[in-house]
Amino acid sequence: MNVKAITLLGSTGSIGTQTLDIVAQYPDQFRIVGLATGNNVELLASQIRQFRPTIAAICLEEKLPVLRELIADVDPQPILLAGEAGVIEVARYGDAQTVVTGIVGCAGLLPTIAAIEAGKDIALANKETLIAGGPVVLPLVEKHGIKLLPADSEHSAIFQCLQGVPKGGLRKILLTASGGAFRDWATEKLAEVTVADALKHPNWSMGRKITVDSATLMNKGLEVIEAHFLFGLDYDNIEIVIHPQSIIHSLIELQDTSVLAQLGWPDMRLPLLYALSWPDRIYTDWERLDLVKVANLTFREPDHQKYPCMQLAYAAGRAGGSMPAVLNAANEQAVALFLDEKIDYLDIARCIEWACDRFSSDNCSNPSLDDILAADRWARQEVLLASEKIDSRSRIISLR
Amino acid sequence: MNVKAITLLGSTGSIGTQTLDIVAQYPDQFRIVGLATGNNVELLASQIRQFRPTIAAICLEEKLPVLRELIADVDPQPILLAGEAGVIEVARYGDAQTVVTGIVGCAGLLPTIAAIEAGKDIALANKETLIAGGPVVLPLVEKHGIKLLPADSEHSAIFQCLQGVPKGGLRKILLTASGGAFRDWATEKLAEVTVADALKHPNWSMGRKITVDSATLMNKGLEVIEAHFLFGLDYDNIEIVIHPQSIIHSLIELQDTSVLAQLGWPDMRLPLLYALSWPDRIYTDWERLDLVKVANLTFREPDHQKYPCMQLAYAAGRAGGSMPAVLNAANEQAVALFLDEKIDYLDIARCIEWACDRFSSDNCSNPSLDDILAADRWARQEVLLASEKIDSRSRIISLR
Repeated sequence: MNVKAITLLGSTGSIGTQTLDIVAQYPDQFRIVGLATGNNVELLASQIRQFRPTIAAICLEEKLPVLRELIADVDPQPILLAGEAGVIEVARYGDAQTVVTGIVGCAGLLPTIAAIEAGKDIALANKETLIAGGPVVLPLVEKHGIKLLPADSEHSAIFQCLQGVPKGGLRKILLTASGGAFRDWATEKLAEVTVADALKHPNWSMGRKITVDSATLMNKGLEVIEAHFLFGLDYDNIEIVIHPQSIIHSLIELQDTSVLAQLGWPDMRLPLLYALSWPDRIYTDWERLDLVKVANLTFREPDHQKYPCMQLAYAAGRAGGSMPAVLNAANEQAVALFLDEKIDYLDIARCIEWACDRFSSDNCSNPSLDDILAADRWARQEVLLASEKIDSRSRIISLR
Repeated sequence: MNVKAITLLGSTGSIGTQTLDIVAQYPDQFRIVGLATGNNVELLASQIRQFRPTIAAICLEEKLPVLRELIADVDPQPILLAGEAGVIEVARYGDAQTVVTGIVGCAGLLPTIAAIEAGKDIALANKETLIAGGPVVLPLVEKHGIKLLPADSEHSAIFQCLQGVPKGGLRKILLTASGGAFRDWATEKLAEVTVADALKHPNWSMGRKITVDSATLMNKGLEVIEAHFLFGLDYDNIEIVIHPQSIIHSLIELQDTSVLAQLGWPDMRLPLLYALSWPDRIYTDWERLDLVKVANLTFREPDHQKYPCMQLAYAAGRAGGSMPAVLNAANEQAVALFLDEKIDYLDIARCIEWACDRFSSDNCSNPSLDDILAADRWARQEVLLASEKIDSRSRIISLR
């Protein structure tokens, strides 16, 4: 097998560092062409020292001189760029075959599009690429004949199960959800939730924002929209099931009723490795799944009263256009406000619903990239405004 | 899609009638070229009437005149044959693309070989084809470039999971076992088992012999050997796990530690349909799996003390040559004696062990088909002799 050339956007985040761990473990399989990150200049410098990319960029322009200084003794020097334009240049540069998009938020959208237009396969860890950008990105994927390789646990599971399935064979997708921090809480108690409560994820160790998304099940709602764009199923055929152990990462049902599932310990490295090695399977010495140790896999229906964000996501997905971008941006803003203790836990869903309701009439079915980015900005602003109007005694009335 | 031409050996048994149910349900997809069966002439006649094969055979020669009479008014008349030679002719005849081998026992071996030599794909429901015949059949499969399509639940599950897996990607096979009728019995109580006890299978409705094999877990031992031949893994990499719900039909572990599983209700029609439709997935209106209804999937280690047949099977598989044929034949004979109440439940494993031990020195690594058939006959005889020597007070001593 040839050494696969990889570019990594968002190299200092959780996805980025885990990707580099894999590259370090398999120097015969992978090499790094480009690295880009937001502002963590110290970590980027040490990554450049270790992985010797040909090109690197730091988004925060004022940090470029620091970066130059930190790697002054590296020889040969990589091309060093800064700003959004620099990140975009890294994304499209050179002979990288696969670009890992670990940038969080809509900031990942333009570099991802640049990489697609340069003919590179995308290991997709930036969910906005499809949730917000789907209407713009999918035609480009088609046009440039590149492959979208899901690098998150659930979509990778579906992608793995689909490998041998003929066109038209897929009938239904079943996304598994741990149920998050409040899985075993009574719905009535959710009004009292604190930030600390929401940050206790039962199975996965993740960032604060995503952990809150797990608690509200918005993460699963967003995954439903992503699955719709990735695998082309109607929303009626994408379901969510609560599976507290997080061992089955998702399932597919085929036309003949056969069901395929992908299983493993909760470990992000596996979907990342498969996105990099696809279609190959590389030997690892990672801990092997032991079903006898697991002993029990359980399943139950998600409770829509307890998790209103799920239905908001289905509704936004069905509305299409820029509505998923509004949903996603409103959620990000609302979760940020919750983490800052500016709004209560139950206000998260209320703020999102408020923004989506207000956007309905402006939604168009065929948005441009500018429409999508504008919708994203609008939704954040709208949630900020809504949050200020919340009256602690009658918050729903004041929002309507 | 073209209509696929199918020949069915063992058309009046459980596999045969379920296959014909599928063909009847999908007349646009499948048509019957040939039918063959042992002695159930009435059912064969009505199948000929319904499915209008070009050729048919009844193994029991004296029934041929009855068959002629029963279908005298069918027009056009199929070619009618009898005896083992007739069954073999049906297997190799005409434009059938896939031959379903639903014949039980070593009687299925010669017709299956004839079908392979005629270039037909095999939907494999006769386990002796590989368990006994593996050393002879596999080189023929290779030579004629035909496909072995497993038509039983466990191997179909593995085969389905393997569809998208690159060469060399498979690391381990995990066969699930319901645990059979004595799953929840104490090992000490097995000395008192009656025939009626052994025939109570918790999940699957099957024939008497196979139900006893489920109780002893010999069915799983035989499946281990079959999996070894079908999928080319060492015995160290084929494991058994007790999964009482029979919803996960088997699993595979890949080189990167990812695990794929196939799930469904316990229903033989699904693996049969897939063996016929492969690589396509045909839409069915069969009951769809409902994980919320299933609620719980559990796993535990099999108990070798309780199920000694498992280790006998692993040992026979590792010994290779004709030893798996001896194991299989000894098991068939011993189960028949148990069902006739000639020996006790615990004597089944004792008789098999006796035959395998005695055969060890005669085993050769490269048996011919005659060697295999001779080993099969020898083992049955050996078990009959052993069963007569069993002394009810000290049976193990008298067998050694």
